[in-house]
Amino acid sequence: MKVVHAEQLASEPVREPGAKGASIRRLIDTPDGADRFVMSLFELAPKGSTPPHYHDWEHEIFVLSGKLQLELPGEKPGTGRTIVLTAGDAAFIPRNEPHGFTTPPNDRARFLVIAPTDRPPIRNVFLSDDPYEIEGQPPAKGGER
Amino acid sequence: MKVVHAEQLASEPVREPGAKGASIRRLIDTPDGADRFVMSLFELAPKGSTPPHYHDWEHEIFVLSGKLQLELPGEKPGTGRTIVLTAGDAAFIPRNEPHGFTTPPNDRARFLVIAPTDRPPIRNVFLSDDPYEIEGQPPAKGGER
Repeated sequence: MKVVHAEQLASEPVREPGAKGASIRRLIDTPDGADRFVMSLFELAPKGSTPPHYHDWEHEIFVLSGKLQLELPGEKPGTGRTIVLTAGDAAFIPRNEPHGFTTPPNDRARFLVIAPTDRPPIRNVFLSDDPYEIEGQPPAKGGER
Repeated sequence: MKVVHAEQLASEPVREPGAKGASIRRLIDTPDGADRFVMSLFELAPKGSTPPHYHDWEHEIFVLSGKLQLELPGEKPGTGRTIVLTAGDAAFIPRNEPHGFTTPPNDRARFLVIAPTDRPPIRNVFLSDDPYEIEGQPPAKGGER
């Protein structure tokens, strides 16, 4: 049995290539006895991103606060789409489906990610080493929390 | 890919023996392609409960709002303990660890439960068919939503 308050855990920067303004709190992890799936709390700062990528394991996502942009690359440049998720939205990203996450210039996002423990990193395929370039107006004066 | 807003989903009553004031929204389920673990949003009304039980699959829990009492039965009557969880708390309940959930008379709880898809129901062992008896003062007049 493990009980933890998210705010009591230190957050670590996400170290994936191209990740920007992204941090993770590992709420329930394999050392806790979770041997099939683990739960983490991600936070993306304004203009944050994790790069477009795919892998042969699935994500389950639940947005706690803010505005999370789920980026779904298209087969050709310019054909991708963006789905905006807010608090209370859940998303299932199947294995091998390309995806990335971004936040708008004036918002941040907190979201849970549940992923299987069985995640062979060699199959984690990045479509780009570059972070997303976020277009948009500069932050409103004094506006961010 | 599936995206769903929790509030758009119908909630169903929890039908386990002894469950009281408990409802479930199946956010991500096997028909969505989730073949290893699934995510549900539970709501417990004031004085709600799910009975003490154990099973050979694990729970991962994240509390979204309200006050969730995690009931851990002891080996002898009267030796159990209660852990109060609030928004932002996560809990890992290992396989075969007896547990139940209750809410106080004046509060309700909303929480995510992630569970494996592989859940043989024949091994779901209830320690009692009776709901928890919640002691406490009656709800404040006109106070509940």
